[in-house]
Amino acid sequence: MFISFEGIDGAGKSTAIDQLKKFLIDSHLNESIVFTREPGGTKISEAIRQILISNDYEKMDPWTEALLYAAARCQNVVEKIQPALESNKVVLADRFVDSSLAYQGGGRGLGIENVAKLNKFATGDILPDRVVYFKVSPEVALSRVQRRAETDRLEKERAAFFQSISAAYDTLIAKSPAHFIVIDAGKSPVEVYQALKAAVVPLIEEAIH
Amino acid sequence: MFISFEGIDGAGKSTAIDQLKKFLIDSHLNESIVFTREPGGTKISEAIRQILISNDYEKMDPWTEALLYAAARCQNVVEKIQPALESNKVVLADRFVDSSLAYQGGGRGLGIENVAKLNKFATGDILPDRVVYFKVSPEVALSRVQRRAETDRLEKERAAFFQSISAAYDTLIAKSPAHFIVIDAGKSPVEVYQALKAAVVPLIEEAIH
Repeated sequence: MFISFEGIDGAGKSTAIDQLKKFLIDSHLNESIVFTREPGGTKISEAIRQILISNDYEKMDPWTEALLYAAARCQNVVEKIQPALESNKVVLADRFVDSSLAYQGGGRGLGIENVAKLNKFATGDILPDRVVYFKVSPEVALSRVQRRAETDRLEKERAAFFQSISAAYDTLIAKSPAHFIVIDAGKSPVEVYQALKAAVVPLIEEAIH
Repeated sequence: MFISFEGIDGAGKSTAIDQLKKFLIDSHLNESIVFTREPGGTKISEAIRQILISNDYEKMDPWTEALLYAAARCQNVVEKIQPALESNKVVLADRFVDSSLAYQGGGRGLGIENVAKLNKFATGDILPDRVVYFKVSPEVALSRVQRRAETDRLEKERAAFFQSISAAYDTLIAKSPAHFIVIDAGKSPVEVYQALKAAVVPLIEEAIH
């Protein structure tokens, strides 16, 4: 069972996932679970992450960005996700290929189809069984992001960028609605976490037992 | 005019290019020329290069490697090669897309066609007008590489790898022979440099005047 978590920055995804992680550890369910995040997850992918999030590289071309995300993803699939799935573990991934489709395909305007083709080289046939999408309006997401003290290169983007990303996610969900579990991330952090837990824990328990 | 230089490690490519560079500077031809190398050429591409050549990342998947080369190449095209060509400069590139076709496509076994498809995302329509290929037998190349004091991750490879790369270059040359200028790099460094100069300087002079 492979579940990924998606959403625009500021959707409250990471906060809710941290709480879920704590719950899973406390419930002793974590031994059957591999947690991972993107870009990152392996030594090589974390080194690539440093290039992607650094403020030193303002001039990064959108295709360079898409290729770097794909490279980090590829290594994470080969070294971490695939072996975990082969030993029947549950993989919980904070972002996966849909992030590239939405951010680079939609946000940067490279086209969802192009970025999907590129990512086939990185992921092979490994795709999430279910995608949990933290749905929030681009306006709310942007206002939340702007409240953070430090912002990295990607988070310095403007409203139009957030709107394009959000629209791309909507396109992906419309294409295969059964693949997605949509959570209302406009609500309070407590409610978002409760919704996440209600969506994911039964899937994990079913996969493990 | 865009000329790239290709060959297996140990072909004597870099030594001959360094000498050519000095000659071009002494002849005051260098003002119309942009030199670049791969992976590298821009700040972002050099950061990617550090990941690619580091000995810390033995576990790197071949597709991760191909994606990282493509990312470094993409940034170098957008930031350096394309602007140079648009202002009518001559671009001399120590390695370009054929290196990926030979090393990752052939050497790593990903397939020349697959790696070519991937690299279309990185290079768009920018391709060298001519490719100077330093041809040497894989055995000679390997023996030269093994004589070097320090070897990086890529150079620690074995004979079979060198043979596959060499075979892939042969395939590429057979497909479009007019595109390549083949230099006998089995000869002495002086002879290799003279052959390089004889092949490239007329092309540069023609492009500039």
